Amino acid sequence: MKGLMMHRPLKIADIITFAADTYPSSEIVSVRTEGDIHRTTYKETSARISKLAHGLRKLGIGEGDRVATLAWNGYRHFELYYAISGIGAVCHTINPRLSAEQMIYIVNHASDRLLFTDVTFLPIIERLRPHFPDDLRVVIMTDRAHMPETPLDGALCYEEVLEGEASDFDWPDFPEDQAAGLCYTSGTTGNPKGTLYSHRSTVLHALSQCVTIPKTLQEGKRILPVVPLFHVNAWGLPYGAPLSGASLIFPGGALDGKSLFDLMDREKVYSAWGVPTVWLGLMNEINQRGRLPEGFGDIVVGGSAASRSLIEAFEKMGVNVCHAWGMTEMSPLGTQCNLPPEMADLPFEKRVDRKQSQGRRVFGVDMKIVDDEGRRLPHDGKTSGHLYVRGNTITEGYFEDPEATNQVFDKEGWFCTGDVAAIDPAGFLLITDRSKDLIKSGGEWISSLDLENIVMSHPGVANCAVIAVPDAKWDERPLLIVVPREDAQPQKEDLLGMLAERLAKWQVPDDVVFVDQLPLTATGKVSKLTLRKQYAEGGEA
Amino acid sequence: MKGLMMHRPLKIADIITFAADTYPSSEIVSVRTEGDIHRTTYKETSARISKLAHGLRKLGIGEGDRVATLAWNGYRHFELYYAISGIGAVCHTINPRLSAEQMIYIVNHASDRLLFTDVTFLPIIERLRPHFPDDLRVVIMTDRAHMPETPLDGALCYEEVLEGEASDFDWPDFPEDQAAGLCYTSGTTGNPKGTLYSHRSTVLHALSQCVTIPKTLQEGKRILPVVPLFHVNAWGLPYGAPLSGASLIFPGGALDGKSLFDLMDREKVYSAWGVPTVWLGLMNEINQRGRLPEGFGDIVVGGSAASRSLIEAFEKMGVNVCHAWGMTEMSPLGTQCNLPPEMADLPFEKRVDRKQSQGRRVFGVDMKIVDDEGRRLPHDGKTSGHLYVRGNTITEGYFEDPEATNQVFDKEGWFCTGDVAAIDPAGFLLITDRSKDLIKSGGEWISSLDLENIVMSHPGVANCAVIAVPDAKWDERPLLIVVPREDAQPQKEDLLGMLAERLAKWQVPDDVVFVDQLPLTATGKVSKLTLRKQYAEGGEA
Repeated sequence: MKGLMMHRPLKIADIITFAADTYPSSEIVSVRTEGDIHRTTYKETSARISKLAHGLRKLGIGEGDRVATLAWNGYRHFELYYAISGIGAVCHTINPRLSAEQMIYIVNHASDRLLFTDVTFLPIIERLRPHFPDDLRVVIMTDRAHMPETPLDGALCYEEVLEGEASDFDWPDFPEDQAAGLCYTSGTTGNPKGTLYSHRSTVLHALSQCVTIPKTLQEGKRILPVVPLFHVNAWGLPYGAPLSGASLIFPGGALDGKSLFDLMDREKVYSAWGVPTVWLGLMNEINQRGRLPEGFGDIVVGGSAASRSLIEAFEKMGVNVCHAWGMTEMSPLGTQCNLPPEMADLPFEKRVDRKQSQGRRVFGVDMKIVDDEGRRLPHDGKTSGHLYVRGNTITEGYFEDPEATNQVFDKEGWFCTGDVAAIDPAGFLLITDRSKDLIKSGGEWISSLDLENIVMSHPGVANCAVIAVPDAKWDERPLLIVVPREDAQPQKEDLLGMLAERLAKWQVPDDVVFVDQLPLTATGKVSKLTLRKQYAEGGEA
Repeated sequence: MKGLMMHRPLKIADIITFAADTYPSSEIVSVRTEGDIHRTTYKETSARISKLAHGLRKLGIGEGDRVATLAWNGYRHFELYYAISGIGAVCHTINPRLSAEQMIYIVNHASDRLLFTDVTFLPIIERLRPHFPDDLRVVIMTDRAHMPETPLDGALCYEEVLEGEASDFDWPDFPEDQAAGLCYTSGTTGNPKGTLYSHRSTVLHALSQCVTIPKTLQEGKRILPVVPLFHVNAWGLPYGAPLSGASLIFPGGALDGKSLFDLMDREKVYSAWGVPTVWLGLMNEINQRGRLPEGFGDIVVGGSAASRSLIEAFEKMGVNVCHAWGMTEMSPLGTQCNLPPEMADLPFEKRVDRKQSQGRRVFGVDMKIVDDEGRRLPHDGKTSGHLYVRGNTITEGYFEDPEATNQVFDKEGWFCTGDVAAIDPAGFLLITDRSKDLIKSGGEWISSLDLENIVMSHPGVANCAVIAVPDAKWDERPLLIVVPREDAQPQKEDLLGMLAERLAKWQVPDDVVFVDQLPLTATGKVSKLTLRKQYAEGGEA
């Protein structure tokens, strides 16, 4: 029997309308490419989004059309998220750190009709333009006064697209599974693959996120997303923040420790979200100044696993660390590791132990761990297995890529995360490793993550990675690659000694390589693929 | 273009599974009809819900069947909410305060197949049984040891229904608009009308509720619903609390000030939810003991408007008052009046002014105010109009009652709340009156609510109501009916003088009637319908 309740499509535009009605004075503060700081409110932003939507319609954008963005975190990028999806088109965010080859592939694969770019990235567009679709038009995200010279034919000015348009828009209804956003992720092999978010998945993700992280996503709180709008929806913050009433502080392109500290200090940012590498820079700045930015109390760390030393350092300063895990294909939030109140009284070391796990699932994300034959494994905190997920916020297939799609779902239709993990009886997920990062030596698995966590606790180590290198006898052996801290000279013997104290002998790497920096992927994670290629010949670079 | 995200039906059972996985030790504490206090957790409760679901299936309950409950707030009632809806049947909660005539009507109108009752209400069932459907079976919500003697044929024992059943259940999928709950509301005219909630409406309501009231609906918080599970889903708490991880403290049938104080004190209840009349009793108890229950910091007041004196009294004691507004037909939450942080620094009187409004809408509830011709009125905080609502948590028609359905929707499909209200630029709703409670005197509207609010601030007044009485000259005139506080003797002249100070002369009632108590509706609100009938002859009882 059918219930008798209204059925309204879940729509992204309803979030900004709600924020404008309900939190009219909550702020969006942006470091602009123009060089200044821009301040606005959800109410004013809602009016500009309406103008932009009218402008997009005039530029011929219709339902289902893809509109690309190549931009830093700022209010105009935020406006694009809402105006594009609001009229039923698809907001395709492009990661500027992709290779030329990858960028050319995705712009053509997505058949983008418009491309909005920050001035910063204009040189990239100018260089690649000949390889993009002929009818693609470029809009430069600035005002007339700041429009740069460009050889691009018919490049438009963002503020002129809005000019003279009406400040309200009658947002159309469409089915809630209408496409709204598109984000490509570069895998280790093959071409980038696109996740095509819907209005339903996006609204449900925002609701679940706010319910799961209520102490941060809350009216009156100020949140700084270092995690970029150009990738994985900045972990959902452009939706979760206005839904909850939290203010957004956008850092633009200035992501070094000093710039972040100054911005956070001035704007009294409570919570900052980003990948571990960013926090190393901020931490240095905090140590140099001997104090925290004013009002700072919380970081959300994801993208790759947070090291024990990072968690310890922030927690010792009184900053709550929320370790989170997710994937582009999951909108992205899967789990978050704020501790339940009954764990608040644990000794410090035990709390840090807990916080090294990825935490508990958000509502709407079902998780299972299975063995190689797909049989379910117990959630006992000890048994590791392949992690699969299911839910409304998870991809059901890559955009126009049946081949890639075929590889990532099991018979029950669950998505294969590529992670190996255990789940404990209190619901905490502990990722042991990426399936492809595991090292198989003499028939036994070695977790590169475990080794890295131990090495990172050495005071002379700034960063490290453990990879598999081919070995004639053992098939694979672990190799430790270390970036020393400035002015520190950690010794090979010390590092291997640390590992030998805590691990079985066969798990300890045979060698250590010291480097100045580690290669990063376009999303700022350590590129183990690159490292494995570099060191494929048994430890020689 | 369709997005490429999984489409899983929103299901109520997923909430309790999530709570069991994620907040396994959050509690449900219940004052039982057996006379003791019962403690359990979401994890244990989830297992018992599975057993109950198996039991229901064995009793022949299938998809769409209506299963009725007549019970206090307690863990078994909570279990029924989930087990009944989990197998695709409909949980029909019955208000024990309904008249015999109304109860007979709704049990037959709903075609209930099973009726679960607390021992307390068994006499009602025994008396009315001959008027209920022949095949209706009764289950008494207790264990074998406490089963009472009853002449009812084939009455079952609740704990025996669960006995020996498996503690897990593979919850079936069905479309998310499947019916899940049924609640009848008794209007001022005609038969009670049923709102038929769906899985979708219920899950979305729970998500929106948690997002909107994040400081209360949060892991570690302990919430006491005085608002009954037998009506309007206890304002959504059986879903919102487990979704957020908050613990639930169920008071059973002991709702007097002393019992509530003792329970709240012992269980360190942070937030208590209920109608204004309940809080008057608690307030007396607090005043007598000269202290608050331990841990008490928040009340949510709804059902009818909270008086200024009630808000002031709690706020002065440091208890946050969240004034809320909703309707059975709205699942029920429409608005809530926690203040935004920027209003926290307002002077006390200004904050209380604000808190007398019904507050801001929850996400998913659209509101409009219109004039008599249906034209939209501005949200300027001054213009009042008929309040209409729209959204996924709002009824689209009464259960098998086309006649009642036809009267409550406008041409755009919005639901008519029957309230008259203004909305201000900060999003705050101020209900001026119920359309049918407004008094029209000499062609001018008089708000009974305004008058009642002023009179309630008199120290000698325990409760009051203002109604319209027929008048030959002015068509209608307001009549003030007052319940004095114990040992107080408020004077007619004083009360009318208070009103005359603040209102236009024609708005001041011509007379005051003193009574010992006001008649209440089945949901505990003052029955103005009864009062109007009593005083229809120009002020004479």
